[in-house]
Amino acid sequence: MKAVMVICDGMGDRPIGSLGYKTPLQTAKKPNFDRVAKDGMCGLMYTIGPGITPGSDTAHLALLGYDPVPIYTGRGPFEAMGIGMEVRPGDVAFRCNFATVDGNKVIDRRAGRIRDGTQELAAAVSGMEIEGVKIIVREGVEHRGVLILRGEGLDPHVGDIDPHKEQVPMLVSKALKPSAEKTARILNTFTTESMKILSESDLNKGRERPANAILARGPGQAPHIPQFQEKHGMKGAVVVGIPLVRGLCRFAGLEVRDVQGATGSIDTNFEGKARAVAAALKTNDFVLLHFKAPDVYSHDRKPAGKVKGVQDIDRAIGIMLEEIGDEAVIALTADHTTPCEVGDHTADPVPLAIWGKGLRADAVKKYDEISCASGMHNGVRGVDLIPLLKGYANRSAKYGA
Amino acid sequence: MKAVMVICDGMGDRPIGSLGYKTPLQTAKKPNFDRVAKDGMCGLMYTIGPGITPGSDTAHLALLGYDPVPIYTGRGPFEAMGIGMEVRPGDVAFRCNFATVDGNKVIDRRAGRIRDGTQELAAAVSGMEIEGVKIIVREGVEHRGVLILRGEGLDPHVGDIDPHKEQVPMLVSKALKPSAEKTARILNTFTTESMKILSESDLNKGRERPANAILARGPGQAPHIPQFQEKHGMKGAVVVGIPLVRGLCRFAGLEVRDVQGATGSIDTNFEGKARAVAAALKTNDFVLLHFKAPDVYSHDRKPAGKVKGVQDIDRAIGIMLEEIGDEAVIALTADHTTPCEVGDHTADPVPLAIWGKGLRADAVKKYDEISCASGMHNGVRGVDLIPLLKGYANRSAKYGA
Repeated sequence: MKAVMVICDGMGDRPIGSLGYKTPLQTAKKPNFDRVAKDGMCGLMYTIGPGITPGSDTAHLALLGYDPVPIYTGRGPFEAMGIGMEVRPGDVAFRCNFATVDGNKVIDRRAGRIRDGTQELAAAVSGMEIEGVKIIVREGVEHRGVLILRGEGLDPHVGDIDPHKEQVPMLVSKALKPSAEKTARILNTFTTESMKILSESDLNKGRERPANAILARGPGQAPHIPQFQEKHGMKGAVVVGIPLVRGLCRFAGLEVRDVQGATGSIDTNFEGKARAVAAALKTNDFVLLHFKAPDVYSHDRKPAGKVKGVQDIDRAIGIMLEEIGDEAVIALTADHTTPCEVGDHTADPVPLAIWGKGLRADAVKKYDEISCASGMHNGVRGVDLIPLLKGYANRSAKYGA
Repeated sequence: MKAVMVICDGMGDRPIGSLGYKTPLQTAKKPNFDRVAKDGMCGLMYTIGPGITPGSDTAHLALLGYDPVPIYTGRGPFEAMGIGMEVRPGDVAFRCNFATVDGNKVIDRRAGRIRDGTQELAAAVSGMEIEGVKIIVREGVEHRGVLILRGEGLDPHVGDIDPHKEQVPMLVSKALKPSAEKTARILNTFTTESMKILSESDLNKGRERPANAILARGPGQAPHIPQFQEKHGMKGAVVVGIPLVRGLCRFAGLEVRDVQGATGSIDTNFEGKARAVAAALKTNDFVLLHFKAPDVYSHDRKPAGKVKGVQDIDRAIGIMLEEIGDEAVIALTADHTTPCEVGDHTADPVPLAIWGKGLRADAVKKYDEISCASGMHNGVRGVDLIPLLKGYANRSAKYGA
């Protein structure tokens, strides 16, 4: 058998007053989620570990079977890979924003949510060399971009330029380890030099909020991780919109499938993504399907929206199940809990349901944060999910004789 | 939010014939325990690990978030800190008893449960120097005391002097590692020398059971552990009577609060301890409240007493909950199981209930060893409890982005 993992970003929640002290999952009409729970095996899962609040990046590493602790340095390299940049061993990659500054003061961290001309702006500051280190800048979606430093003796343990707030000065990057002093110095020089270029550039003419600075954050180095197929013995693909998860899956050697209309947000092509899973399964043993919608609603503190997001995903899962039939073991889960009333990730464990033809079913009837707690796989950890799926797909080699 | 952990020493039990094959928790009227279970998240917790019978010291280390395996050497240093002694790096500390011996034979391990004059007896043998190592003896409660060896080249891996039985000879301490030979030799010399001093002392005149020997046991070295606040990002305090837990909490840098009438036993000031929690929360982020009563009844094999002890604690928890309101996440648990019919610790997991405003509730309705087993946090480990509470108090920093 093959295996499919559906990750609904930030879908876990807590009871919400406006929903009658139910969670969005308890409120939503979601016959397909519930069918998998009823016919399958459930649990609450600690994606990283009890009491650890996962980031989306560390959580996805764990769900792909990689312990993030020894390999994770920062988000930059995943974002870089996600927008199609090459990240080489030794590179230090940062996420960055085009921003509007006045002197050193950050006026707008998103330069008026700039959309046009970022490709030219990135090109204008890309390619310079500082202390023998090459600077590569590439635009991403809207005001976002990626900065890569490429050369000898770089170290990702440096502070951000981005103060993560407005009306305060940009930061001077500091080395967090002595071995990172060169990297911090180069980053600070680049920041100053790029401000000069951008301020004087015709590309900013007529802009109310000129993109006159680049605020770098989230430095990291490309992790050396075993390829997914080599590690798990399954050829894998992923259907996902957001650059972070696309990049992370590229590192793991998964085939990244494009779907028309996939936005990585609440308005994505749910049905198209669902259908892409069955297509990808034709040439793969494992497919990861990712939906961002629940997390977007959660960060925006919109419980009713989150209920709709769950229902949108539920319809997609219905289509997916119909197309796949009983060819694959299915896992439905989330990368972390994002309670609408908190508006950010928390450490609460996430619901999990696993179904496959001929496998056991536990007594759980509904897919939600309360019902799943009495399931067969309660308390499992994210890093064990791929091994569990392999086991249920009869793909786990005997250990011993 | 803040966090409160209530540890009821030895509260876990097994079905008892005289209670109609129910446990003391299943028998007791305990509306406040049950309310927390009903409104919260439950489980059975392995304080150290499956099948590991916890000591009170190792269990409390784990419940404070410290893996005891790499740091625990013996109980001595905790008892020493608990009675207000200073324990320096390199010291080896022992618990000890004043005992009555005849020649080498132990007649009474507690010297008639001696209460008077132990301060003078300790002073009489304290202060000597053997092979350049300073000997410090201090009396504790009743027949108990602490012996500290202070000097170069000491090692806690030595056998006890205390045979833990009566009508048998005192032991000669043996080095359990070659590096501990000096320590064993000094301990044996001290034991002989102190017997001479005590036998000849006027302090023993007229005593039917003279305190003419010191039986050392439980050697250990001060662990180097990160301070609680540094490790968990919460300023912490503890409300507890027994020296062991007081000492252990001092090592961890928790503020130890005194409560009038707190005895560390079945006759403690339950209400005063409950009220002290709310007071301590004013200047702390975390408070540990400890009750010894259930363990005392369990070691004495008194199930009916244990039921009363649980009910005494329940009333205290009611007062505590009322005073705290919804300011803190609450955990109710035990450090280990002490079945009344065994009369000693066993490895059975302990009940756990966690409640906090706005958090999830599972289907468990009662707080006991059977009901909690179907809860959301079943199977969790003691070392994960502080991380879980931090997570639920929204104090867990995001790992990743």
